[in-house]
Amino acid sequence: MSLSRLDPRRVRALVRRALGEDRAFDDVTTAATLGDGDYCCTATMVAKEPGVIAGIAVVAEVFRTVDRGLMFQSFVSDGDRADTGATLATVAGQAQSILRAERVALNFLQRMSGIATLTARYVEALSGTDAQIADTRKTVPGLRVMDKYSVLAGGGVNHRADLGDGVLIKDNHLAVLLGKGSTISQVVAQVRSAVTLTTKIEVEVESASDALMAIASGADIVMLDNMTPVQMREVVVGNSGKATLEASGGVTLETVADIAATGVDIISVGELTHSPRALDISLDLAYA
Amino acid sequence: MSLSRLDPRRVRALVRRALGEDRAFDDVTTAATLGDGDYCCTATMVAKEPGVIAGIAVVAEVFRTVDRGLMFQSFVSDGDRADTGATLATVAGQAQSILRAERVALNFLQRMSGIATLTARYVEALSGTDAQIADTRKTVPGLRVMDKYSVLAGGGVNHRADLGDGVLIKDNHLAVLLGKGSTISQVVAQVRSAVTLTTKIEVEVESASDALMAIASGADIVMLDNMTPVQMREVVVGNSGKATLEASGGVTLETVADIAATGVDIISVGELTHSPRALDISLDLAYA
Amino acid sequence: MSLSRLDPRRVRALVRRALGEDRAFDDVTTAATLGDGDYCCTATMVAKEPGVIAGIAVVAEVFRTVDRGLMFQSFVSDGDRADTGATLATVAGQAQSILRAERVALNFLQRMSGIATLTARYVEALSGTDAQIADTRKTVPGLRVMDKYSVLAGGGVNHRADLGDGVLIKDNHLAVLLGKGSTISQVVAQVRSAVTLTTKIEVEVESASDALMAIASGADIVMLDNMTPVQMREVVVGNSGKATLEASGGVTLETVADIAATGVDIISVGELTHSPRALDISLDLAYA
Amino acid sequence: MSLSRLDPRRVRALVRRALGEDRAFDDVTTAATLGDGDYCCTATMVAKEPGVIAGIAVVAEVFRTVDRGLMFQSFVSDGDRADTGATLATVAGQAQSILRAERVALNFLQRMSGIATLTARYVEALSGTDAQIADTRKTVPGLRVMDKYSVLAGGGVNHRADLGDGVLIKDNHLAVLLGKGSTISQVVAQVRSAVTLTTKIEVEVESASDALMAIASGADIVMLDNMTPVQMREVVVGNSGKATLEASGGVTLETVADIAATGVDIISVGELTHSPRALDISLDLAYA
Amino acid sequence: MSLSRLDPRRVRALVRRALGEDRAFDDVTTAATLGDGDYCCTATMVAKEPGVIAGIAVVAEVFRTVDRGLMFQSFVSDGDRADTGATLATVAGQAQSILRAERVALNFLQRMSGIATLTARYVEALSGTDAQIADTRKTVPGLRVMDKYSVLAGGGVNHRADLGDGVLIKDNHLAVLLGKGSTISQVVAQVRSAVTLTTKIEVEVESASDALMAIASGADIVMLDNMTPVQMREVVVGNSGKATLEASGGVTLETVADIAATGVDIISVGELTHSPRALDISLDLAYA
Amino acid sequence: MSLSRLDPRRVRALVRRALGEDRAFDDVTTAATLGDGDYCCTATMVAKEPGVIAGIAVVAEVFRTVDRGLMFQSFVSDGDRADTGATLATVAGQAQSILRAERVALNFLQRMSGIATLTARYVEALSGTDAQIADTRKTVPGLRVMDKYSVLAGGGVNHRADLGDGVLIKDNHLAVLLGKGSTISQVVAQVRSAVTLTTKIEVEVESASDALMAIASGADIVMLDNMTPVQMREVVVGNSGKATLEASGGVTLETVADIAATGVDIISVGELTHSPRALDISLDLAYA
Repeated sequence: MSLSRLDPRRVRALVRRALGEDRAFDDVTTAATLGDGDYCCTATMVAKEPGVIAGIAVVAEVFRTVDRGLMFQSFVSDGDRADTGATLATVAGQAQSILRAERVALNFLQRMSGIATLTARYVEALSGTDAQIADTRKTVPGLRVMDKYSVLAGGGVNHRADLGDGVLIKDNHLAVLLGKGSTISQVVAQVRSAVTLTTKIEVEVESASDALMAIASGADIVMLDNMTPVQMREVVVGNSGKATLEASGGVTLETVADIAATGVDIISVGELTHSPRALDISLDLAYA
Repeated sequence: MSLSRLDPRRVRALVRRALGEDRAFDDVTTAATLGDGDYCCTATMVAKEPGVIAGIAVVAEVFRTVDRGLMFQSFVSDGDRADTGATLATVAGQAQSILRAERVALNFLQRMSGIATLTARYVEALSGTDAQIADTRKTVPGLRVMDKYSVLAGGGVNHRADLGDGVLIKDNHLAVLLGKGSTISQVVAQVRSAVTLTTKIEVEVESASDALMAIASGADIVMLDNMTPVQMREVVVGNSGKATLEASGGVTLETVADIAATGVDIISVGELTHSPRALDISLDLAYA
Repeated sequence: MSLSRLDPRRVRALVRRALGEDRAFDDVTTAATLGDGDYCCTATMVAKEPGVIAGIAVVAEVFRTVDRGLMFQSFVSDGDRADTGATLATVAGQAQSILRAERVALNFLQRMSGIATLTARYVEALSGTDAQIADTRKTVPGLRVMDKYSVLAGGGVNHRADLGDGVLIKDNHLAVLLGKGSTISQVVAQVRSAVTLTTKIEVEVESASDALMAIASGADIVMLDNMTPVQMREVVVGNSGKATLEASGGVTLETVADIAATGVDIISVGELTHSPRALDISLDLAYA
Repeated sequence: MSLSRLDPRRVRALVRRALGEDRAFDDVTTAATLGDGDYCCTATMVAKEPGVIAGIAVVAEVFRTVDRGLMFQSFVSDGDRADTGATLATVAGQAQSILRAERVALNFLQRMSGIATLTARYVEALSGTDAQIADTRKTVPGLRVMDKYSVLAGGGVNHRADLGDGVLIKDNHLAVLLGKGSTISQVVAQVRSAVTLTTKIEVEVESASDALMAIASGADIVMLDNMTPVQMREVVVGNSGKATLEASGGVTLETVADIAATGVDIISVGELTHSPRALDISLDLAYA
Repeated sequence: MSLSRLDPRRVRALVRRALGEDRAFDDVTTAATLGDGDYCCTATMVAKEPGVIAGIAVVAEVFRTVDRGLMFQSFVSDGDRADTGATLATVAGQAQSILRAERVALNFLQRMSGIATLTARYVEALSGTDAQIADTRKTVPGLRVMDKYSVLAGGGVNHRADLGDGVLIKDNHLAVLLGKGSTISQVVAQVRSAVTLTTKIEVEVESASDALMAIASGADIVMLDNMTPVQMREVVVGNSGKATLEASGGVTLETVADIAATGVDIISVGELTHSPRALDISLDLAYA
Repeated sequence: MSLSRLDPRRVRALVRRALGEDRAFDDVTTAATLGDGDYCCTATMVAKEPGVIAGIAVVAEVFRTVDRGLMFQSFVSDGDRADTGATLATVAGQAQSILRAERVALNFLQRMSGIATLTARYVEALSGTDAQIADTRKTVPGLRVMDKYSVLAGGGVNHRADLGDGVLIKDNHLAVLLGKGSTISQVVAQVRSAVTLTTKIEVEVESASDALMAIASGADIVMLDNMTPVQMREVVVGNSGKATLEASGGVTLETVADIAATGVDIISVGELTHSPRALDISLDLAYA
């Protein structure tokens, strides 16, 4: 899978669902105050704190879905940094449409920019190394694609999109199978025969010896779960470039540089998508 | 609207969508490693930090949707506090089903409990006053109902569910109409004639004088936006119990007690749902 | 909720469903007789009896959905009175499209205009009083929004849109709770704490004393069910403007004036939507 | 098509849509008053006026959809006559579920029984003749199947279900084609070659001579639109049993017997489904 | 029903589903190689073997659905014969869009043209007779409408579209009812009273005597299943033009002419849609 | 992806769609002849020619969807060979339900078994070699999952499930990029950086030299398109086990053994799914 491009059809579906959830087309206040009157105005989206922006196209789609007549113009691209006070975008047209769309547009943009901003901080923390920051499947239900796209905008890379996108044999799978007498080699071979030709295989391990066994059995990627930097280093040396190595578990902004220094290829961080702080952004409406 | 009860049909729909998004039924790893073999096991959900739990019924639905044969048992109820290490629930049955459901179940439970935990901290901060903590529409797109339910679990109250649930005449509505020469009184009267009989009217104001005007015009609720405690106090006195008063804007755990001391009825906090930290919860699988 | 404006998205969905139900796009007769030939024509919608028109925008949507190339022009607006023989609208374009759309267009327009016409007769019957005619939830399944919109077109007002739009504590709710020892006051207070901040509370009562109790407990609206004018008058006096008063039950064109004379604010009439007579309207096609 | 049997899947879909429209699962009143408490009760559906009942299975489905635990028992079958005061059905179980379902159940049953009752009056009016009362496509959008089923319950027969169910060449189709120089014979032959083998062909005519021409061209059914009894009689004689003859247009309870006396086979009546009066039926809840 | 015209709405739905199934909008290869770059090109669809073409409009819809900016031009119409090397169509625009659409477009066109080509061979085999080749319901699940439309393109006629489109009383229906003591006449009469007025009745029989009984009972069509030419001839003579006669069962390109010689009206062939060979067609992309 | 297991949810959806397409629940014949009568019977599915069976679970789902009361029993498993006359399954219960389900059940089973049977013939043709027969994306729109599952049942392996399941850089992608001056190495590197970590990369080439370049650039799989056995052999030798090698293009039952003899790993065959002959299977109903 590639999530480097938000499929417009998917964005449209998510935007429609979000507007439906907010009953944007049953906005009783706007209907009862402004009705179908002609109230043309311009609204400006402004960053209230510094951050990395993601989701501009989603915001554009929110406004377009509510009213094709709205004119949306953005002044930043996804992945751009914005300072406090920066104008991110403007939208002009009927006040009623802007008011119906406002909350949903901000809810998307603030979350996506929050994820991009947090990812960028991690990426900065390991500048000077070859390691990359990867996301996880710890996303908010319903927003998987947008959450992962925001990680890309912040400079990270994407781990598998979902349970159908590549094999990741986790500790729990191994626990069951090794308990039955299988070896890691046998498990990898068995999986190879059951999947479509284009599918990669990753194995999660918790010790350096298991890691080396997984590498030997032909695993394409090996996940080093909750290992110490010393253990990771041992695996990096033993691997000598054969498999892709991924560090995982309890990574923080404080520890990420030390992990990268071991020479692993990938460091995955759940916090990027399960606990980002929304970036503070406002929509200011000017009616002349 | 009442959100005090998660409608089972809605939960089911959200759970199905989340499992579909994760392609839980295309879990290539589980299919390729465990197939349709008979691997019975038990998994335990454990709190890794203290917090208030919300979403137990959602987790139950995730497991039931994946496999009706799974036996789910919970040891806490929504709204309960859990200490580090507390067992929240167990689920027993085929390992394959538990593995397919695991991530989605945790994604729901960790977010919902994160919201409940943050709400509870706000509620504690104004104990001893009559004020109540309310949520906003700053929720994650697609999870409005669950986000707001979690606020209730944490001891808060719910502001309107969506744009169709009650009138809230915001600054932007007024800006347009007052600019056209209307008065607050006229706006409230016009709205009253356009809505169904059972609909309440709230007006957002930014000064004490506007607040008193809104109260005089018969608004059911008046939102005091970004006012100082001194201004709020003035409105509380002038209102003398007529309208419900709501404080809003820039509320933090540090400022909330002072706001409550002014005598307002409701304090609304966007952070509850736009920036909660996921509560750390794990699922441990035991296979014997 | 406000139903004063038919949301175009909802109209579109209803129109599509109606055309699908009639299999308008599988119109075997039109396909087999006219095929894809070029048969341009004009059709005229004519009132065959006097009435109040509602649903012009729905008719327009029916034709647009069948064929974007049809040119639709209306000569009346919703709420207008039309005499026998009045031209309501014309539609020009391919005969095939007009024939596919005809029945569904008329089915909507005749029902909606029938409701508006009946409502208007009730509204006329209480001219000179301040009372208003309200609808109920006794609508045809699937057409709630259109039925209630038609009541507005006929000069009535809307009671709640659905079970989620405001509280109406009915005799059956009270029967259960009072049987358990609760008082009306306690029920109203309990409800107040469970609903979103913007929700109004109405209580249905069958005696003047219960009505006064409901008013005292802070109910926003009190429904006087099947009371005599004498009883209603007693409540009107005791209320002195505090709650909104609604008369309900067995209202007919003969009795409605007497009820209005008691001073109640609202009179609700189920017949408006459960038993309107379709207004006689025809579509005449001219092919030159 | 046969509509003599309401497909359970279709009923289920219509019932779900109706409950969704009424937001039965967001019933704020019931949630806020009775919550998840244990309030067992019994409700009785009673006829408040005499009529022919239709829709019992739909009512059962409404209750079942809201709560599988409700026990529904009916005392009449579709097509039965009920006197004033007759108990039609009882439903027992949680009060909350009955309250959520009540309005939708009655809305279906009252309309369907209203149609059956009106049909039965027409059928009675032509007792002693061989003619049959048929419905039309003048049904309420969304309820085609139920409306037509109710006609059967009242003793009528069904004309085509929708535009895909058999050919009916109407005056407007002929106007276009005859204007181009075709003959009725040619039109019928052309249609025969374009439709699936199992499709019948009906032609609408407005004069006796056109009727005889249509019969001669091999039409399976000929609709005599707005003809006088004298004209109809002429066609009946000329047809001598070859085609099925249908009378249509402006039929009332006063004129239907005279039309039947001409010997036509079928008399179609739009009023059956576009303007029935809802049968008065109540649901009385007893809580002990 | 008439299937002589592919309803554009239905085509659109099938095309969307097919593209979704192939995840055309998640085309990881095209996204990762060409991204959103500007790569304009032209592709040509070429017949690699001779055949009858069907499905050009479906191919057009595939390209339009993927990208409205693609320019599609066809050089043949459905029903045309194409020789090896013939250019069927060209499509010009962004290479990415053409690549996303290619496989789905070819999958539709190759199957549909395969059916048309096979049908045309059968039709040729009975040239000089009045008999017609008809299809059956032995189509690929999901493609009924396209399969049957392709039969028309190949020169065949359509038997009923589905189980709702006309009555066909099969051997199994008769087995049950005759076993209960009914006669064919009684069965036909009973069916006549239960179906909508426009529905034709066909009866399947396996002997000449049953065929003559079915004809006598007023069946509109009689299917002669697995009869010998001698038996068929006997029925043709006895029928003398009253009912439509259909031969069915084990028809091949070798036997079809002899069957037609008996004078039956229709010969139905399951192979047309259950076992056609895909016509070999390629899409060649030129990038300049 | 793994297609070795038909997800029950997906089967259910396909079965429902197929039954809906055939309007199995509007089966006018069965409703009009047998109504809701009690006609219990048993039906037997019998192979009329030898073959490999696939789709038993789909057939079971068809019967279950139509009527949960039907008892289905199968006597073969997917992948089993069946001789002429072999009883594949029986189903017992109401005749009406079996008649409604019959055609759809057979349509699935005959196509799936046809694919499995054809695949098995190819697999047999290369017995004694290590090569495997793989499918393609040349499947019938809507049945991708079932078509590919049937290939597994016949002893083949699955190439990628869809455009989202792994990268396959085709000639057309390369044509565009190489024309722009990129090298195969650069393209592979660029793709690697854009896809999720678990995604494999395949490159299609038409010459031995390009194949060796693709192998050198780190492609996981290399597709040898329309090469001669001599060319393939050259690549096999040069590769020495590094990449997986796939032969593709114009493979027939006659040529497949020679291709396998070159030492390629995989041979993909479009015919398996675009032109299988339906296996002849009948359903015989016995009514006692």
